[in-house]
Amino acid sequence: MSELRRDIVSGRWVIIAPDRTMRPREWDTEPDAAEPEFGACPFCPGNEKMTPHEILAVRPAASAPDTAGWQVRVVPNRYPALRVEGEPGRRAVGMFDMMNGVGAHEVVIETPEHRRMPHEYTAGTWGQIVRVYRSRIQDLKRDVRLVSVTVFKNHGRQAGATLSHPHSQIVATPVVSLVVRQEMTQMRKYVAFRERCMLCDAAVQEIDAGDRLVWMNRAFVILAPFASRVPFELLIIPLRHSPDVESLTDEETDLLGEALAAGFRRLFAALGNTPFNLVIHSAAGVGAHPADNSAHLRYHWHIEILPWVAGAGGFEWGTGFHINTVTPEEAAAYLRQAKEAPQR
Amino acid sequence: MSELRRDIVSGRWVIIAPDRTMRPREWDTEPDAAEPEFGACPFCPGNEKMTPHEILAVRPAASAPDTAGWQVRVVPNRYPALRVEGEPGRRAVGMFDMMNGVGAHEVVIETPEHRRMPHEYTAGTWGQIVRVYRSRIQDLKRDVRLVSVTVFKNHGRQAGATLSHPHSQIVATPVVSLVVRQEMTQMRKYVAFRERCMLCDAAVQEIDAGDRLVWMNRAFVILAPFASRVPFELLIIPLRHSPDVESLTDEETDLLGEALAAGFRRLFAALGNTPFNLVIHSAAGVGAHPADNSAHLRYHWHIEILPWVAGAGGFEWGTGFHINTVTPEEAAAYLRQAKEAPQR
Repeated sequence: MSELRRDIVSGRWVIIAPDRTMRPREWDTEPDAAEPEFGACPFCPGNEKMTPHEILAVRPAASAPDTAGWQVRVVPNRYPALRVEGEPGRRAVGMFDMMNGVGAHEVVIETPEHRRMPHEYTAGTWGQIVRVYRSRIQDLKRDVRLVSVTVFKNHGRQAGATLSHPHSQIVATPVVSLVVRQEMTQMRKYVAFRERCMLCDAAVQEIDAGDRLVWMNRAFVILAPFASRVPFELLIIPLRHSPDVESLTDEETDLLGEALAAGFRRLFAALGNTPFNLVIHSAAGVGAHPADNSAHLRYHWHIEILPWVAGAGGFEWGTGFHINTVTPEEAAAYLRQAKEAPQR
Repeated sequence: MSELRRDIVSGRWVIIAPDRTMRPREWDTEPDAAEPEFGACPFCPGNEKMTPHEILAVRPAASAPDTAGWQVRVVPNRYPALRVEGEPGRRAVGMFDMMNGVGAHEVVIETPEHRRMPHEYTAGTWGQIVRVYRSRIQDLKRDVRLVSVTVFKNHGRQAGATLSHPHSQIVATPVVSLVVRQEMTQMRKYVAFRERCMLCDAAVQEIDAGDRLVWMNRAFVILAPFASRVPFELLIIPLRHSPDVESLTDEETDLLGEALAAGFRRLFAALGNTPFNLVIHSAAGVGAHPADNSAHLRYHWHIEILPWVAGAGGFEWGTGFHINTVTPEEAAAYLRQAKEAPQR
């Protein structure tokens, strides 16, 4: 059973999930970089028995679960950091805090094609993936123990991916992460002062200024954020205010699919196959009454994409500062005119 | 001129330091991994002319600056992220915040020996390095524009090191980092409730509990922190309360040298040559009157060492959560009994 432990100095929660098969002398070996043989990829069609039973799949109505023929497939993580069973049981350990490792850890297999790259997905494929995210988040949020659901994608080994078959992950936790908590605090302060939403205002300002604008349609804007941490960082802001990503309408999922397809085509045209992380930031905490406007304004969901042209060092981890050698204005100008990478 | 920009959503400051020689198509190339020819290392003795003029060196009284013979040498970073000249000039850009890139960025060349490893330093060598840190911090803090000084060391490419000759870095900034600000907020809450210092209490509790204790002498304790983010994370806490690392007495620098030597010998015995980051967390902000006890209790400086046995992925960056597969208790037990790696 894994544990959630809270660092008293930073307020940060950490998941301690010991792998019981690990032995001390294995700690100093590199994680296995070898690509499994093609037939051995647990995410490839035909190998459905290599994963736990599927939770959800986009597949022909007639086809059976855990068989080939799907387009998107969601399965529990085989090595979950958190498990659905049991109560959180938050308690003190002397002056420290801990909880049981209650939560969910799922894998979204985005495509049956092992070697398909993110910039090769059509807008339709991305839209389908987004609808799968939405469905899983809605389901997980029915569990009152889970106050926060994070969707993320690691592309490339340097970004933390261990299997190369295209997939993203969903983690639901009984605590709010430090990052979302901080963001909610900042946005609340802004609301308290201006009685307006910070990201609604930022979207208007940035579209107007134009020099950090990468792309937009009628529902989403892609920006190079003013304080980009890394070269070519991207921020996708929905133009309709909502705290929660799972509030997306069907039409909006199509338009977000279009944004993701356009964003990745430009990113890959500029940088080639660079490792990146994509994270959906969505409100956490107990839902508020829909008539409570201040709660409605408490957060504005968004997507961050962090390409790792350069790595992160001790300064970044130790201080939260980042040193970025490419200005967001330069990155945005380059991405605006980037010839989109060819699409399959 | 670089800029400091504040991300409005997170409150995080980012240094935008464009390298003017960079051209778009160079963005997608890997940073140069090649080790410079031995004679070409700018930090090796005899190559002192390859660096800017030294700021400080531990060297024989008779020897001239910028010549060989030194034991520790401090020089300005040749590619500084921040520069000493000018005023911070904090100002608004629409709803955003920015400042000029005012600050200092120095390199501490820890030893003349190009291939010496951190676990091979004697306690005396580490003590000498710590005294150099102390001296530079004291000097930089005389500049009232600079409210925060961070000392850090990146070991290995995965940890962000670009030159392999052993060195650490000092960055002084006109703003407080998000990490130290958060830690100060947490510690202030603890003081408000208990009228005691959080880390003073934690040190006593952890020495008493013993299961996360790695090593201690009469001035410093090395712990595997309760909520370790990565396997074998280390936390060094000074037993005498002080907000600021530069308050170290000479005797304490010797004892900290002993702690660093012991800590790295055990870490390298356990993990081999693993990339790591070391960061000194020290109080930031305008100094308080010595008689103001609450200000004195506002922070407790400490050192974090993060070995990178496993990398960090999108989940960690996007949420602030970390998944750690080795319990701190297991790591501490292993490090307590680790045969110390041989010392040159």
